[in-house]
Order: sequence, then C-alpha cells, then structure tokens
Amino acid sequence: MAGIGSRARAAARILANTPAAAKEAGLKAAAGAIRAEAGEILDANAQDVAAARASGMGASMLDRLTLTPERLEAAARGVEEIAELPDPVGKVTERWERPNGLVLERVRTPLGVVGVIYESRPNVTADAGGLCLKAGNAVILRGGSDSFYSSRAIHAAMVRGLTAAGLPADAIQLVPTRDRAAVGEMLAGLGGNVDVIVPRGGKSLVARVQSEARVPVFAHLEGLVHVYVDKGADLDKALTIVRNAKLRRTSICGAAETLLIDRAGAGTFLAPLVTMLLDAGCEVRGDADVQAVDPRVLPATEEDWRTEYLDAVIAAKVVDGLAAAIDHIETHGSHHTDAIITEDQAAADTFLAEVDSAIVVHNASTQFADGGEFGFGGEIGIATGRMHARGPVGAEQLTSFKYRVRGTGQIRP
Amino acid sequence: MAGIGSRARAAARILANTPAAAKEAGLKAAAGAIRAEAGEILDANAQDVAAARASGMGASMLDRLTLTPERLEAAARGVEEIAELPDPVGKVTERWERPNGLVLERVRTPLGVVGVIYESRPNVTADAGGLCLKAGNAVILRGGSDSFYSSRAIHAAMVRGLTAAGLPADAIQLVPTRDRAAVGEMLAGLGGNVDVIVPRGGKSLVARVQSEARVPVFAHLEGLVHVYVDKGADLDKALTIVRNAKLRRTSICGAAETLLIDRAGAGTFLAPLVTMLLDAGCEVRGDADVQAVDPRVLPATEEDWRTEYLDAVIAAKVVDGLAAAIDHIETHGSHHTDAIITEDQAAADTFLAEVDSAIVVHNASTQFADGGEFGFGGEIGIATGRMHARGPVGAEQLTSFKYRVRGTGQIRP
Repeated sequence: MAGIGSRARAAARILANTPAAAKEAGLKAAAGAIRAEAGEILDANAQDVAAARASGMGASMLDRLTLTPERLEAAARGVEEIAELPDPVGKVTERWERPNGLVLERVRTPLGVVGVIYESRPNVTADAGGLCLKAGNAVILRGGSDSFYSSRAIHAAMVRGLTAAGLPADAIQLVPTRDRAAVGEMLAGLGGNVDVIVPRGGKSLVARVQSEARVPVFAHLEGLVHVYVDKGADLDKALTIVRNAKLRRTSICGAAETLLIDRAGAGTFLAPLVTMLLDAGCEVRGDADVQAVDPRVLPATEEDWRTEYLDAVIAAKVVDGLAAAIDHIETHGSHHTDAIITEDQAAADTFLAEVDSAIVVHNASTQFADGGEFGFGGEIGIATGRMHARGPVGAEQLTSFKYRVRGTGQIRP
Repeated sequence: MAGIGSRARAAARILANTPAAAKEAGLKAAAGAIRAEAGEILDANAQDVAAARASGMGASMLDRLTLTPERLEAAARGVEEIAELPDPVGKVTERWERPNGLVLERVRTPLGVVGVIYESRPNVTADAGGLCLKAGNAVILRGGSDSFYSSRAIHAAMVRGLTAAGLPADAIQLVPTRDRAAVGEMLAGLGGNVDVIVPRGGKSLVARVQSEARVPVFAHLEGLVHVYVDKGADLDKALTIVRNAKLRRTSICGAAETLLIDRAGAGTFLAPLVTMLLDAGCEVRGDADVQAVDPRVLPATEEDWRTEYLDAVIAAKVVDGLAAAIDHIETHGSHHTDAIITEDQAAADTFLAEVDSAIVVHNASTQFADGGEFGFGGEIGIATGRMHARGPVGAEQLTSFKYRVRGTGQIRP
C-alpha cells in the first residue's frame, strides 16, 4: 500500500502538467479499451456475480453488481463524455493588479491524489477514475470485494488505454487486494500521499469514512430533503413538484423525505397533496393535522422528522409559516437540498438565504440535485461539508488553486 | 466548553443573516470600545507582563506580549479597517441557466464557527475576532495563557461594542479558562460546533493542531521559501529581490530560506549574490560551488535544505537549470511561496506552472506573501493545504458557498 501512495504522488506530479489534449486522448483511449476488452470484463463480472449469488446476495445488490453489454457500453460512453468536458486545470478564475504593479492571478490546479472507496457497482471504476483524471489528479480506487474481478478487469483495460496514449500507468491505480486493512490505510492518508477521500456507497460506508479519515472527505451522510409548500404556492405546481421530488426515484439522495405545509395555506394545499401522495402509492406519516385529512395517514413520531426513507414513504407536517419551516429544516435537516414552493418572491428569497444547505431550490423538484442536471457533465458525488467542494462534485470541484504573482522587480518596503 | 460550542452555533445562524451594514456598525462599535476601555486593557496587560517577567520569559516573547497605547490604537484601527472591507457574504460568484430554464447561482455564505487558537500576542483577539465576524462567522478564541488577562479585557470591550450595536454577545467568545484541556475539546470540534480551526503561533502549536484536529485546519506548518535565480535573470533585480526576500524581515513565513542559482548563470550571479548576503550580515551555508566563492560560507548539510531558519541565515546551492530547481523545490519545499528571477518569460511560465506551492512569484520578493499585500485587507494566516483556503486567508477565504436554484415549476423527467 505504501508503494501505491508514492506512485500516485509521482503520477500526480506528471498529470498536473499534462496538457488538456493529452488527458482527453488518454481518456478516449481508456474508453476504447473498455470496449475492446468487453469480453474479458463481462467474463470477470460473471465470476463475481456467481460468487455473490452463491453467498446469498439479495436481488437489488446483485442487480447493482451485474454488468451487461449495454451497461459496459454506457460506462465507456461516460468516460468519453468526461474526456470531452472542458479542462478545469490552468483556468485563471481571478486576476487583479496591485498599486505597486504586481499582477496576481488565481489559477486552478489539480487537488493531487484522490482516494475513492466504493461498494458493489463496478462501473464506478470507470466513472470515478475518469473524472479524477480529467481534473489532473491521480486516483487510488478501492472497489468493493464483491466486484473485485470486475473492477480489476475494467481497471486493466483503462490502464492499457491510458499508457497507449502516453499517460502514466499510475494515473489510475486499483488497490490489488480484498484485505480490509487497505481501507484503513487509505483513510490514514498513505503517508501523506492521499489529499482527499471520496466514499461512494451506503450510509455505513460514508459514516465509517467520515469518522476515521485523517484527510478531507467529500461526501454526504444522508439527504434529509425537505419540500416546504408556502401559503403563496400555486396548487398545480405544488402537486407536480412534490410528486416528482418524492416519487420520481425514491432511492436517490435528492428525493424528498419531509413535506412541510404552511398552516395559513393548509385549507388549500394539505388535502390535495396528501391525497395525491397516498393515491400514488406513497405512505404518509403525519402530525395530527395531516392525520385528520385521510385515515390512511399513519402517525409520525419524532424519529420520522430525522429519517431518510429512500423509499415511497414521506413525513408530513403543518408548520406555522416560513420561519417555522426554516427552523424545522435547520433543526432536523442534513444540509443537502431543500425546496420552497411559492409565488411569493420575498418568501422565496428569505428561504434561499436562510436555509443553510448545499442546494436550496425555489419552485422546482429537489431531484435536480445532481451534477449532470447542474450542467457539470458528471459528478463523483454530492458533498454537504462546508469546506472546498459542496453540492455536486464534478471535475471543477476536484481542483484546488494557487496564486501566480508576476512582478518586474518589486520588493516589499 | 459544550455550552460555548452550542452558543457559537446559535450566534452563527444569526450572523449568517445579518446585513453588511449591521456587521460594519458592530465592528466599528467594537473598535470604539477598545479605545474607550484602553486603560483597563493596559492595566490587564501590565498584570500579564509582570507575571511573565517573574516567570523568566525571554525578551522577544515579552515584547510580543506587551501592549502599548500605540499598539492598542493600531488594534482598534485594524478592526475599523476590517469593518470597512467589502462584505463577502451573499456575493453571487457564478450564475448560469440550464436548457430547462432553471437558473443556478453560486453564492457565498459564512463558514459557520471558526476556532482560533493563538499564543502570546493579545492583539490577535481583536484581529482574528474581527475578521471572522466580518465574514459572518461566530468565533471561539483560545488565547495563550500568558496573555490571559489582556485577551480577556480586549474581548470584554469588543463584546460590549458588538452588543451595543445589536449583534449577539456570542458572536465572539473567548474560552474563559487557562485549562489546557480546552484546546483538546476545540480540536475535537465541540460536538460538531466548530467548522474550522485556525492556529496562530509557532511551529509546535501548528503541528499539534494539524495532528490532533478532527475538523479542517487553515494553517501552514512552515514557510520553506525558495528563490531561484535563473540564467536569464537581471543581476540588479536578483540582488535587490534576494536581499529583500531574505533580510527585510527574517522572522516571517514569506522570508526566503534557500537560494538556488542556475549553473549556466553562476559565473554572473553566484559571487555577487553570496557576497551581498555575507556583507549584509547574513550567514550563508552552501554546497561546494558556493563555498568556493568566499571563505565565510559555511558548508551546508542535507538538513539545511529542509530548514526554516526564520533568522539571518540562508542555504545556497547551484542547480543544473530550471528543471533541477523545480525538482529541488518539490522535494524539499513546504508548498508555501517560491520565486523565480528571470527575464526569460518561458522559464518563468514553466516555473509558475510546475511549482506546486500556494504562491508562486516571478521577479518580485517572496515577502509579498501576505493578505494585506495581496489586497485582501487583512488575513488570519496563510494556508498551505489544498482544500478550501490556500494562500493568505482573508475575509473572503473565511466563507463557504451554496447553490441557489430558481425554477418555475420544473420537474425532473
């Protein structure tokens, strides 16, 4: 493992000064190699799937683990799309001149070495590896032990592509062991050779990484997403947005988990929203006001205001106006994504200013919390920390910066 | 200590939504209170100085601890200057529209709660407290035990000013005990109530904070600053800049510690530079080439290439051109500030691109590594981490951001 860290650092130094065109060509070659070696990759995946099935893995986990020719083609195409993103490195984001004539520039640089720890989905190997490299970083991937052979085959193909295009083989490394101690070593930073860790997986993985890592972590533990329907809302918009925010996909971090309804608008909004959700097959757990609407509503407990269901279940509550809604969100939320539905611009502005979440939304679905939907061309995850990356983490968010100071002989008085 | 953390968090929520004018008025009132209570503050300081002298504190530490009417006036004036800086909070730094009509904005928000741990200089109380508050953050200050009474008096005055202007008393809190366990509790994050720690002090303090903190740290451990004199340099510029970079003030982190001279230009530059330094009273420790110039040059050991002297001492070496200089800096440096002196624009561009330091300088003194000199209107320190704040940490660098998404009913397909 120590060798992996120092090789990644050496590769990072090369990648930091690799021109955009060379990174683009390398990623396209890696995508081509995934296509060319699809047979070997699918064979390796069949081996993982057979072992997982024999060990009794459940159906949804098996589905995540399984590669098909279509899924592998999508992974290759994803790497090509990353290749075609604008290169974030070297971009001057600010430039100013001092009275003494010094010209200062703030310029984007790679972060260095990114460690990615993920679970069963083997296509993360292609996706995370590609995005980190696009931003000029070396990456150390630690895949799930269930997808060991699949990740190894995808990684081998990508490295053949990268090296054929002249990039260092150590640009994307895969931890070559299933030994769980390797994760601990990555979290400790491999002797200063890991600059940031990105966990990709369930809550228990993220919780472990956040509590043990000795280097910065880009992640969110949960998406306890709220939609607040203000008294100034438009009913049709509220119905459409709440339905989409909760039910379009219930398993993603941007899915709504709590519905807050303004008491002053409850006569208009409460019954239609609750009935719509129930009729659409969503379990509703409500306070006394919400329970009064329909006998199908179950009573909510204190626990429900803090639960990320990731399922067709929603907690619903009537609140005493905007301030109470913000207070509820600040007390119970996870600072991920929260939305207000209203036609009252002043109420929207207050909500957007005072809710302290990575993404705050007015009159749109919370399921837009996604790097692709933001126009970032992909993401390695969504972060809720307040340092550095926050919100969707795309190629640009995988960079750091430095200051360039250009003088003509200035000295400090 | 637990109460301090939760009170800071509550104050941070208020400060995050406090208008710029109110923060400016609060800081000006705090500065006014420092002036109004100068007598009490100087009395408290006299008590600290007497105790320190009795315990045998050395002259330079005593000087740092001592307040005079002039130094206190400078601290008050510093707080007023911070008050007058532009408010970084609420500034929209990016704005874009998606094909579906969603309008996204990236807007600056405060970081939250900043913990500042410092040593003997009591004026850090005013300076760090003011800068954090300007950026909408609550701050928890832990001063050195030597300056306990001085810091307490400055803090009490500032709080009287802030509250008179309507800001929360907990906006700036001072740990009310000399108990060293309090530092450990801050480094552990006070139950999630500290977002970032800023250590202000010597290397042992910074090293302890960096190794023990469970929250992000804005700091640099050392400034192992290099000046590389390229074969394309102008001799007069090289002499002026090297002298200023090393000797203007030797105790600051931007002071040069290692001089690298291009072998191809050694005939022109080596002897004049070494002689200038020696004649100016600087000890020079050199490799064999440098020793050959003057018998006063001492031999450099491997240790010298990694030593931050913070004194009138410099390590000097002849290197085989630009690539060797960059290699030396990347191997031995601390990624703080490094400079090239040359009239060759291509060499300068390569150096500025490839040296991976927070600040890279062409043809100017490294002693410009300073928030004031950058035009940031003050700094709480200089950071060499790659996450979030890097380089001088001013008010803007004490902020985070969030995304505001404005829709007209958009849902995700």
